[in-house]
Amino acid sequence: MAWKGRHFLSLAELSKEDMIGLMQRATHFLDMGDRYEPDAPLAEKIVANLFMENSTRTRCSFTIATKRLGGDVIDLLGETSSVSKGETIVDTALNLEALGVSAIVVRCSEEDGPQNIADNVGIPVINAGSGMNGHPTQALLDAVTLTRYFGTDDLSGQHIAIVGDIAHSRVARSNVEGLTKLGAKVTLVGPTELLPDDLGVDTSTDFDAVLSDVSGAMMLRVQFERDAKVGEDYHDKFGLTATRASQFGGAIMHPGPINRGLEIDDEVANITSSPHNLILSQVTSGVATRMAILEHLLG
Amino acid sequence: MAWKGRHFLSLAELSKEDMIGLMQRATHFLDMGDRYEPDAPLAEKIVANLFMENSTRTRCSFTIATKRLGGDVIDLLGETSSVSKGETIVDTALNLEALGVSAIVVRCSEEDGPQNIADNVGIPVINAGSGMNGHPTQALLDAVTLTRYFGTDDLSGQHIAIVGDIAHSRVARSNVEGLTKLGAKVTLVGPTELLPDDLGVDTSTDFDAVLSDVSGAMMLRVQFERDAKVGEDYHDKFGLTATRASQFGGAIMHPGPINRGLEIDDEVANITSSPHNLILSQVTSGVATRMAILEHLLG
Amino acid sequence: MAWKGRHFLSLAELSKEDMIGLMQRATHFLDMGDRYEPDAPLAEKIVANLFMENSTRTRCSFTIATKRLGGDVIDLLGETSSVSKGETIVDTALNLEALGVSAIVVRCSEEDGPQNIADNVGIPVINAGSGMNGHPTQALLDAVTLTRYFGTDDLSGQHIAIVGDIAHSRVARSNVEGLTKLGAKVTLVGPTELLPDDLGVDTSTDFDAVLSDVSGAMMLRVQFERDAKVGEDYHDKFGLTATRASQFGGAIMHPGPINRGLEIDDEVANITSSPHNLILSQVTSGVATRMAILEHLLG
Repeated sequence: MAWKGRHFLSLAELSKEDMIGLMQRATHFLDMGDRYEPDAPLAEKIVANLFMENSTRTRCSFTIATKRLGGDVIDLLGETSSVSKGETIVDTALNLEALGVSAIVVRCSEEDGPQNIADNVGIPVINAGSGMNGHPTQALLDAVTLTRYFGTDDLSGQHIAIVGDIAHSRVARSNVEGLTKLGAKVTLVGPTELLPDDLGVDTSTDFDAVLSDVSGAMMLRVQFERDAKVGEDYHDKFGLTATRASQFGGAIMHPGPINRGLEIDDEVANITSSPHNLILSQVTSGVATRMAILEHLLG
Repeated sequence: MAWKGRHFLSLAELSKEDMIGLMQRATHFLDMGDRYEPDAPLAEKIVANLFMENSTRTRCSFTIATKRLGGDVIDLLGETSSVSKGETIVDTALNLEALGVSAIVVRCSEEDGPQNIADNVGIPVINAGSGMNGHPTQALLDAVTLTRYFGTDDLSGQHIAIVGDIAHSRVARSNVEGLTKLGAKVTLVGPTELLPDDLGVDTSTDFDAVLSDVSGAMMLRVQFERDAKVGEDYHDKFGLTATRASQFGGAIMHPGPINRGLEIDDEVANITSSPHNLILSQVTSGVATRMAILEHLLG
Repeated sequence: MAWKGRHFLSLAELSKEDMIGLMQRATHFLDMGDRYEPDAPLAEKIVANLFMENSTRTRCSFTIATKRLGGDVIDLLGETSSVSKGETIVDTALNLEALGVSAIVVRCSEEDGPQNIADNVGIPVINAGSGMNGHPTQALLDAVTLTRYFGTDDLSGQHIAIVGDIAHSRVARSNVEGLTKLGAKVTLVGPTELLPDDLGVDTSTDFDAVLSDVSGAMMLRVQFERDAKVGEDYHDKFGLTATRASQFGGAIMHPGPINRGLEIDDEVANITSSPHNLILSQVTSGVATRMAILEHLLG
């Protein structure tokens, strides 16, 4: 792989070829099933999960990725860490480096938090979600999931809809970057008040019109915990209802956790046996993708 | 062992012979002391502790059991998990399976939670306490503790009292099932308002009368955290006082944590050198019993 | 090493030679960098972190020390442990022993908590901070840091200032004991209301006068979380300002987390490339020192 990155902060630092290199390595790990990597490239290495914002799913994904590579993990969670005693996140990171950890996986509310840490420590930093704009490992795992679904190396000629609460979604922003870099056309769909127009791709408020043209639909979580507000017609207009799903033959994705009955109907989310429902495949791809990133930075 | 169970949800699924098979394997692990199993039957396996209700003791017991079998653990605690973002426990479990965990140990307030999860995932599920009625690993470890105390394979001819806050006790319900299946007679003792009469065994409000007839007394925690209320005479009537203990030559048990001075007098709880005080033996048996279950399901 | 201690509760139990023996072993581990000890002296051993008071930094330090020695860790945190159900800390410790853990690392608000546990269990107990008076592993790691800075085996002829919120500082109390035992003169500096006079060493309210005479300054955290109150002139009088630092050629230490701009100016704390700024060296020494203690007690 040509990519020489010392950190994994955003997809902006990676070329299309860099992304494909990591995605192919992730595919290798997916093909291993739940096995641990025999070479244990992270043996004697401790990865710190510095999660200022809670995300059990993402944290567990990184934890399992680290363990499958033979490494150890320590967790620092926002509500219980030294940061609650007034320490800055950079000071916390410097302390982690001094403790001897080999890498820092960070989730925080500041958009520039991961970069600030990377500027101050001598160990690799991985962005596990920052502010409203960055979630590059999610975008990479979504790309892995889609290329496996399409049976391709990149996403040339594909058209993907990202649907719902675009405004509060770091997943949307990172995916716009990742999907377009891999050759896909992206259209953002949602109610006007949740649909920013400055992301450089097409937007629409007409889900049905877009759905008839795309090969994949990424449904987003309405982030009530970030004070997102939606009208009573949200489900009718922007939900992946059973009716819409029955007429759609493309990839169905959701980063989770799902507000069932709002973004996706129960019966659609539940048909895990459908080859089009990739929601749990995303979770599985996430572990493999994070293994590829950790191996690249630490192996 | 004849038992072919894929999950460990309740003792109803196990025959007396199945129970004894697991108990004998637990005894093997007890005889190993604190040693790790050399064969590491859980190597490269990750067990998820999905604890929607807090129970440090039970969670640590499963964690240590997993580690002694060579496995890894991830913890998902109710207050910090995705469930707090509105995800159902079954969705959380499906995500854990997609993350690649090998088994789910679940504690939850819904009686049918473990069964619901088992109906939806393809990996083993272990009930670590559900609602008011199920705590089958506790019942099995109590049986292990008692058979070692009596020096027997089963509990034929034994009479065991379960004493106190029966109403709120999943321990009582699972033990009624386990003890009777192993041949013991069981009498439930407590104040009328905490003494349900639908559990299919004898009940009594006269602790002293029962105590003179039994070979073991399981004292239960008064679950104030579940709004249990007891009168001022509770300790006099239903506590294992020093006086009662001095006249009693049978097994003394408590699932912990103890309300000292209420259910058991300090001086009784403290005499850990007494061969009759099995309270800490229960804790030790718990690790060995959970090792036997995990090995059976995953080994 | 002559020291035969079964527990590590306070420096009072250690002779100067015992301290130096542990410090030399810590230096060995420091020289290994972040490597794991190949012999894995804690293999098949589980260390319990029983932290009734939160301290992410100290807990992570013990966790990493244990892992680098090949051991496993379980965490019991105050807010979520059985203690919140009314169990005493000694009962919790007895349960941990019964669970099969090999040692208990305890932090608690009671000064005699670690001793009480040690009196009741048969496994080693390590004091990771108790009440207002004891933090012996911090004092030992500070001594390791200072002897490496001075290039000496002990601290004969050195004069060390401990500065700031002495009143609320267990670090100060343990360091007075440790530093003097190693031959150093100690002067406590701070505002009168935070400066107890019963610690058996000199005190001063004139930081500048003391600073001109010492070879090391331990700046303490003002413990607002323990209701410490300081005047508006605290920074001017007792802060390690850029001006003071520029005139001082000795060791600069702080146990962290720092209240930046109060105890130490930003620009002083940030110059991690300065050979005099030992703040992060203390963190690194902490892991090595705890490895030495754990190895001695459990190896």
